[in-house]
Amino acid sequence: MKLKILGCFSASPSKNSFPSSQILDIKGNKILIDCGEGTQIQLRRYGIKFSEIENIFISHLHGDHFFGLPGLISTFRLLGRTKELNIFGPKGIRKAIELLIKLGKTWINFDLNFIELEEKNTVKLKENDSFSVSTIPLKHRIYTNGFLFTEKNIKKKIKIEKIEKLNIDKSLYNNISLGKDIILDDGTRILNKDLTYPLKKDIVYSYCSDTSYSKDIIPLIEGSDLLYHESTFLEKHLELAKKTKHSTAVQAAKIAKKANCKKLLLGHFSSRYKNLEDFKLEAETIFDNVELAKDGKEFDIL
Amino acid sequence: MKLKILGCFSASPSKNSFPSSQILDIKGNKILIDCGEGTQIQLRRYGIKFSEIENIFISHLHGDHFFGLPGLISTFRLLGRTKELNIFGPKGIRKAIELLIKLGKTWINFDLNFIELEEKNTVKLKENDSFSVSTIPLKHRIYTNGFLFTEKNIKKKIKIEKIEKLNIDKSLYNNISLGKDIILDDGTRILNKDLTYPLKKDIVYSYCSDTSYSKDIIPLIEGSDLLYHESTFLEKHLELAKKTKHSTAVQAAKIAKKANCKKLLLGHFSSRYKNLEDFKLEAETIFDNVELAKDGKEFDIL
Repeated sequence: MKLKILGCFSASPSKNSFPSSQILDIKGNKILIDCGEGTQIQLRRYGIKFSEIENIFISHLHGDHFFGLPGLISTFRLLGRTKELNIFGPKGIRKAIELLIKLGKTWINFDLNFIELEEKNTVKLKENDSFSVSTIPLKHRIYTNGFLFTEKNIKKKIKIEKIEKLNIDKSLYNNISLGKDIILDDGTRILNKDLTYPLKKDIVYSYCSDTSYSKDIIPLIEGSDLLYHESTFLEKHLELAKKTKHSTAVQAAKIAKKANCKKLLLGHFSSRYKNLEDFKLEAETIFDNVELAKDGKEFDIL
Repeated sequence: MKLKILGCFSASPSKNSFPSSQILDIKGNKILIDCGEGTQIQLRRYGIKFSEIENIFISHLHGDHFFGLPGLISTFRLLGRTKELNIFGPKGIRKAIELLIKLGKTWINFDLNFIELEEKNTVKLKENDSFSVSTIPLKHRIYTNGFLFTEKNIKKKIKIEKIEKLNIDKSLYNNISLGKDIILDDGTRILNKDLTYPLKKDIVYSYCSDTSYSKDIIPLIEGSDLLYHESTFLEKHLELAKKTKHSTAVQAAKIAKKANCKKLLLGHFSSRYKNLEDFKLEAETIFDNVELAKDGKEFDIL
């Protein structure tokens, strides 16, 4: 799993960073998470193929998380897209996007599927052989979901030397990696566990933006390999964080620690701060493995 | 009058330029013309104070000309704006913007006045002592207006040596510059023309985007000091220009020549072209004084 940050600042525009947007690559499936204004400019800047995006997840309907969506959809049309596009987001998103497209008297040549959310508990939004996506209900000023992305490891790594020694036909390798036993020509059954290494665990990325400090999310994101948690403010603005239903870097770190996450990625910074290293320093007082989001930065999630 | 380009490319996103948006400064009045996605990022980048913008003119409801508007309005709110904001644009703009703001459950603390247009002939949209704005009806795929901005010169430059010699009180200087005669203490009338230089003519900026080649606009923009005319395509793509109701650089130059404009500014370039100098070269085969729009470039209109 690979994550690329397209934008990581909060609503007020910044000279050097765009509002929230990320591209998650799960085994070649390109998933767009949030779509702040200018997301399509960032996609172009970082050379991401527009046509590869099939699923878009929008956390909530504040402008810095979805005002880039109408422009992106218009561009899909301009580029001649025919492949369907799935947009998961809060109820109301369909009406807004359809109205904007209608005003331009443009027609869309691809299936635009809106999956509108209003469920307050966690729900599974998508599941296939490669990955699954569930909601992480967040506490913000309006209905907001984070998203939990799981890359499924259904294939075991095979012990190639052993298999070659047994002279097993290559056409069976896939079955072996999927956990099947093998019957040799002489009728001997070779157990799968003798031909493969143990199945690697699934890889989990949790995306939490925007939210006030919420213990309720801890069981949902337990053990995530990477947790992106918003930290709009530093601790000196804790009261402002509470008032606006955002989090501080320390609060994000507390969540990461309590949920036994492997790594914490901070973002959604208020443009009032000059030195973003302060976010890292504050979070590191609570949790060891902290990184800062930055436009264009890429993270391998292992 | 001073013009600053914030973005000058057409709909498909470019790495190096934003979609249509310009800031026109008429005697300190900051006017935003079109508001493509990312306009607020450009305003921030070029250090333009958000609070100084009081009037926004939107040519038409294609995304590359107004998808930056909801984000800009949200930012006005975040920055604590109290001053009213006037938005002139095609009918439908109010409903779209109000829906997007409503979805975020945010409230606006300033008067947001929409002046919705559906008139097919030219109309005067605004007039005060400093400037006036009229529509230039354009021919595009949807209802579109260009805008004609006139800086009024109502004050004459006074002949200061002559006035001092006559010992005229300074409190009367303003009346003199406004064209009034003066009666001296001995009853002698001094004619205004002897105290002032002739009134300088008004300064006119015409903004025409997007449009197919249209002779109808020529009488409306006659003698403009600066004409911005879209040139989405080069002449080799004339058929595509016709089909999409856009113009080529040569067509823009023909309009500038026939309307006796002083200078032509080309913009709204398709991102298919690598070398924009070709637009200038093509236009110069017809018209002498041609400039290319570029993000961040400033033009004095004299």
